Amino acid sequence: MNINQRSIELHKKLKGKLEVKSKFKIESIEDLSLLYSPGVSAPCDEIATNTEDVYEYTWKGNTVAVISDGSAVLGMGNIGPEASLPVMEGKAILFKEFANVNAVPIVLDTQDTDEIIKVVKTIAPGFGGINLEDISSPRCVEIERVLEEELSIPVFHDDQHGTAIVTLAGLINALRVVNKKPEDIKVVISGTGAAGSAIIKLLSEYGIGRILAFNSSGIVHDDSVTNIVIDEIKKITNLNNEIRTLEEAIVGADVFIGVSVSNILSKEMVQSMKENPIVFALANPDPEINYDLAKESGARIVATGRSDYPNQINNVLVFPGLFKGLLETRAKRVPIELKVAVSKALAEIISEDDLSDTNIIPSIFDVEVVKTVSEVTKNIVLDLRENGHNI
Amino acid sequence: MNINQRSIELHKKLKGKLEVKSKFKIESIEDLSLLYSPGVSAPCDEIATNTEDVYEYTWKGNTVAVISDGSAVLGMGNIGPEASLPVMEGKAILFKEFANVNAVPIVLDTQDTDEIIKVVKTIAPGFGGINLEDISSPRCVEIERVLEEELSIPVFHDDQHGTAIVTLAGLINALRVVNKKPEDIKVVISGTGAAGSAIIKLLSEYGIGRILAFNSSGIVHDDSVTNIVIDEIKKITNLNNEIRTLEEAIVGADVFIGVSVSNILSKEMVQSMKENPIVFALANPDPEINYDLAKESGARIVATGRSDYPNQINNVLVFPGLFKGLLETRAKRVPIELKVAVSKALAEIISEDDLSDTNIIPSIFDVEVVKTVSEVTKNIVLDLRENGHNI
Repeated sequence: MNINQRSIELHKKLKGKLEVKSKFKIESIEDLSLLYSPGVSAPCDEIATNTEDVYEYTWKGNTVAVISDGSAVLGMGNIGPEASLPVMEGKAILFKEFANVNAVPIVLDTQDTDEIIKVVKTIAPGFGGINLEDISSPRCVEIERVLEEELSIPVFHDDQHGTAIVTLAGLINALRVVNKKPEDIKVVISGTGAAGSAIIKLLSEYGIGRILAFNSSGIVHDDSVTNIVIDEIKKITNLNNEIRTLEEAIVGADVFIGVSVSNILSKEMVQSMKENPIVFALANPDPEINYDLAKESGARIVATGRSDYPNQINNVLVFPGLFKGLLETRAKRVPIELKVAVSKALAEIISEDDLSDTNIIPSIFDVEVVKTVSEVTKNIVLDLRENGHNI
Repeated sequence: MNINQRSIELHKKLKGKLEVKSKFKIESIEDLSLLYSPGVSAPCDEIATNTEDVYEYTWKGNTVAVISDGSAVLGMGNIGPEASLPVMEGKAILFKEFANVNAVPIVLDTQDTDEIIKVVKTIAPGFGGINLEDISSPRCVEIERVLEEELSIPVFHDDQHGTAIVTLAGLINALRVVNKKPEDIKVVISGTGAAGSAIIKLLSEYGIGRILAFNSSGIVHDDSVTNIVIDEIKKITNLNNEIRTLEEAIVGADVFIGVSVSNILSKEMVQSMKENPIVFALANPDPEINYDLAKESGARIVATGRSDYPNQINNVLVFPGLFKGLLETRAKRVPIELKVAVSKALAEIISEDDLSDTNIIPSIFDVEVVKTVSEVTKNIVLDLRENGHNI
């Protein structure tokens, strides 16, 4: 059986990859009186007096909602809430298995931006954090921005920032391998959706010298069609307002990052890049250029989103540990300084000795990953808070 | 330590009575490829093609949302969403421990009827059923009515119907003990909130001859203030439009049922009832008449909501098994015939030999309870469906 058939069989057998469990076996009327009526009214009273006590007496402090409207699911696009549920359940079990964080999949029967915002705000009191998932761009940016402003728990759209943080981590190490400085390089990015726009912002924050961004309308420049995402990209890319094709722009580039569609990067294009080309072809399952072809074309370092090639850019490296750290410090948001710090810490897990063309990013089964990501998250949150940041 | 202090300590220690667990231990890239990307896209595709397949590949078919706005929590009233969370978590673990049904507590940051309806509808695709909890009357009736019409999964407000089903079960057995027929008796009910109104409707459906209902405005009669709940009660109670006080109405009554406030039933009132008085004093934690005083006053059978006296009317007897049966048959709603059938089945668990003044309702730890309730639920759903009922 191929992987799809095996996945179908396994999903059919499990009928849900996760379950809710009681932490306490109820065996007597006494147990019931303590955990339910009448004893439960005591913690309720405490919380009614001081809302923050909800963290002391309930699961809120270690529980995240994984929320999707099913509008941009993996490579499948707009498949709706029910069909997105297996992905959200998968995400939820990764939260638990990797970081012991409870996660509850919630799929929404609406794709209206205002309605999604309203619903997430309304169900937020029972959760310590919100992981938005597979919501299409540019709505995802607007939804996250408003929720971040209006809620006092962290809101994180993983398709944007999880991907961006891991991509930057991989790029930091790729630059270590080829011995180039971030401020000196030229990066061409294909894709300005959720992942692409977040990568652009994070790379810019990190200090990458020159970024050119492409989407289906060509290069982003001063006169590109305006929306909440493109407006932000315009401010930090293509500052000389060049009008070029992807073929033209990639000539002399140090890095290509694709979060777009398969097979748009040719052998000739890779060959036109600067020495030691770095190619992150992250479209899934079919990358912008096939791994082997990229290597044949002279790419020094190739990363993909796939687990069957070296250098997998995988969000699982970030979200479990990040939320663990956010929850443990009761952080209210996820500022960009924190995202950069997580990228750097993730990159540093690979020692100088282990670093190579085919080892720029740690394995998700490396136990250091969650530990490092949660620790750096906690430290940065506490530092920022000490410096008067409302986090 | 008293029960409140012990409950506080236990809740502090647990920091959440429930957790989410993966059913599958993830140990390799292979596991990840099957449960998450890329394999997960196979079940997603199946569900995108046929929405009903969501029951085959996800937890939906065995998962209930326990939803509250915190407006009418136990005896505490309107304490808000965060403070209601310990109760919803308690409910969730009872679902799991008694019937192996997953339940997710969701507390809402709104008490607006239309907003609650909208939010519940929007998050419904990921759940197989909705258990509404601790929402104040009459909003709870309106919310449940609209959701039942507009959703194709069962919606059940436990404070209404759970209480009503167990109350009717207890009453059926109390009548067996005193050898009276439902059609011959007069029942006085104090309280027309969520529980009271549902009890009245269920007793009427069961065939109780004469019901008089009281609330803080006195007896419900033709000119009582109108709302969605009172209008229904008017149609089935006080058909002679009597204007009486509670003291006057209880003279010659066979049964008193209180779901109202403490200490409104006096010794003299019990003494004025017909022979073999049946008194269900269900206000919690302090009943309409103290158990011992009711017995002293000559009540033959006394039931309360408390676990420290005989004959506890406890919703836990119903909701776990009921939802188990509803989920296993993928029922779309919970018609009143089904509720009556569950009451009858619950009553019949007590054999003729075991039946007594102090044993009219089974223990929640009797393994027959969940089995019986879920079986009768399944049988009735299938029967109704066979007879063309859209359930």
